[in-house]
Formats: sequence, C-alpha cells, structure tokens
Amino acid sequence: MTKGDETKSAVLGSAIALASTLGLEGVTIGKLAEHVGMSKSGLFAHFSSKENLQVAILEEAVARFVALVVTPGLKQPRGEPRLRALFERWLAWSRADFLPGGCIFVVASVELDDRPGPARDRLIASQKDWVDTLAHAARIAVEERHFRPDLDCEQLAHEMFSIAYGYHFLRRVFDPAGAEKRSRAAFERLVADARATRP
Amino acid sequence: MTKGDETKSAVLGSAIALASTLGLEGVTIGKLAEHVGMSKSGLFAHFSSKENLQVAILEEAVARFVALVVTPGLKQPRGEPRLRALFERWLAWSRADFLPGGCIFVVASVELDDRPGPARDRLIASQKDWVDTLAHAARIAVEERHFRPDLDCEQLAHEMFSIAYGYHFLRRVFDPAGAEKRSRAAFERLVADARATRP
Repeated sequence: MTKGDETKSAVLGSAIALASTLGLEGVTIGKLAEHVGMSKSGLFAHFSSKENLQVAILEEAVARFVALVVTPGLKQPRGEPRLRALFERWLAWSRADFLPGGCIFVVASVELDDRPGPARDRLIASQKDWVDTLAHAARIAVEERHFRPDLDCEQLAHEMFSIAYGYHFLRRVFDPAGAEKRSRAAFERLVADARATRP
Repeated sequence: MTKGDETKSAVLGSAIALASTLGLEGVTIGKLAEHVGMSKSGLFAHFSSKENLQVAILEEAVARFVALVVTPGLKQPRGEPRLRALFERWLAWSRADFLPGGCIFVVASVELDDRPGPARDRLIASQKDWVDTLAHAARIAVEERHFRPDLDCEQLAHEMFSIAYGYHFLRRVFDPAGAEKRSRAAFERLVADARATRP
C-alpha cells in the first residue's frame, strides 16, 4: 500500500461511518474534509466528485463485507455450517463499530432506490452477488444432503435477505432487545424447513 | 370537515408523496409550500415547525394505513383468511399511487433511527401497534384452529414484518420482477408452518 492508498483507505473508513448514520447523501466532500482534518482540495484530488465518493464508499464497504463476512464464512465446512456462519457474520456486520448507524447497505438502499446512477448500480451489483453467494451456499448444503433435494435455494437466499434487513430495523428502531432472538428464530425456522429430514 | 381541515389533508397528501421519495427530512415547509402552491407563512400557520410537520405526515400516513389495510383486513373472516388479507393489503399499500417512493414507514425508519424525538416516537408507536394487530390476528387463527396451539404468534408477526420490509427493498431496488413472488412464497411458508396440520 502506498501512502496515498493508506490515506484513501483511512478517509473511506470515516466516510463509511458517516454514511452509516447520515446516509450517502449526507457525506459531502466538505463535511468529510472537516471530519478527517484534510483540505477539501486534497479530498477532491482523491475523489473528484460526490458521485465518485459515493461509489468509493460502497466499494470500501463491499471490501470490508467480503473480508469480515464472506471470506471467513466460506472457510467453514460445506453445507449447513457454512450457511449458518454466513448468517451469524451478517448479523455481526450490522453491529460493527465502524457502522455506528447500522448496515450501510440498508441505508444506501433507501436512498438510492429513486436515484439511477453508478452508486445505485454498484449497490445492486453487490447485493446480487451476495444473494448469489447465499444461494450457492444453500445448493452446496443440498449436495451435502443437509438440505432436501427439492429446496428452492434462491428463495432461501431471498428469505435470509429479508431476515437480515428486518434485523436492521428491529435492532435500530422497533425492538432493540428482541432483535437478535427474533431474527435467529426466523433463521432457525428457515433452516428447519430446508432440512432433508422433516421433524 | 372544515375548510381548514380539507386544506390540511390535501397538503399532507402531497407531503406524504414527497416524503416517500425524498424522506421526511427532505420535506421542508419551503419545499412543500412550493409543491402545493401555498405561501410558506400559510403552511407555518398549519404546522408551525418542521418537527410538527413530520409528526403530522406520520399521523396522516397511519390514518391511511388504517383505512386501506387494517380496517378492511379486519373485516375478513377470523383466522387465516384475515391474516392473509392483512398481508395482501400490506403489500398493496407499498405500491399505492400516493407513495411513489414506496412505503413511507420503511423510509422513515432509516431516517429516524438516529434521531430521538416526537417523530421517531410516533413511528415506533405505529409500528408496534401494527405488530400487535398482526400477532392478535394470528392468536385468533390459533383459537379458530387454523393454526397450531403452540404457535409463537409474536414471532409470526415479526416475521411478517421482515417479509414486508424485505418486499420494499426487492421491489424498489434489487428484484422488481421477482419481489411479489418471493414475498408471497415466504408468507406461504410462514402460514404452512403455522398450520395445525403439518404436511
């Protein structure tokens, strides 16, 4: 990593934390400059526009998500254990210290739904990759005979997505005390339905 | 309804549409005045502050939700039919013409999670009322023996919440074509698990 890369990475860390709370639109180059103690012109040299900054924030968030959730999750044994690890790490991601306002992808989803452009495209691509990763992990669980052969793995992946997005709102707004219990119970029901042997 | 009430209701209709797209924070008294062709001073007479306006927008949204989802849903036969009607009307709500940016409660949830105050309190109260209504509808389905006696009705209500919030994001951002199918399939799985007779 060059000095410039290091600076950029540190700045993006602050930008992610701000975006988690204020939204991507809340992170102007001016506000970010103030927050990290750099000049606006210095930041412009790195990002050149608000739109580029938003894409860079999402890229950095995806890189962290891959490092903290996807890569370690995929190292777990094939099948149900791997899917469980991905789910647990996903919940933990939402509580990460560098995301004081919760999962940045949920926040960005609400902002960007009405705003076509590169940031929205990057967000959608990242979430599609993630649903594909989950569906693939479910398919492996079918191959391993942990899950039943007629399982709709895409549907399971989408239901995990709903549980995790629901977790964000329960934890942040509606039921902070019960969020983990509720979300885990929903996941357990999903896994129980997916298993090869019905109770 | 007095003339003043009629004006207020029409203004709030525009405010809900704006908030659905821009968020509650995006609906300033100035922007709303421009949108409805009234003077800023006229709107101040109705709402007096941005915070009061936000609470009034949420109150109007809750009134519409009750009129379009809760009241007609509760008129359906007790048990599973009633719960299904509430779910279907909830999905339809998210697609209402006066909500061009989708469900205002999802949008407001992301905005208000970091902002304590009367608007956040109003939002949380409304969503708790709604989860209670769903849990109560599920308990009636247990009484009617449509659902099994050991069903966790609170958990079922929370899972409906996750499915509906997930529906918002699928429809608005990640999978517009598949959102309804995915969300209905998740609900069918929820109902199948809740039924007295397991397959």
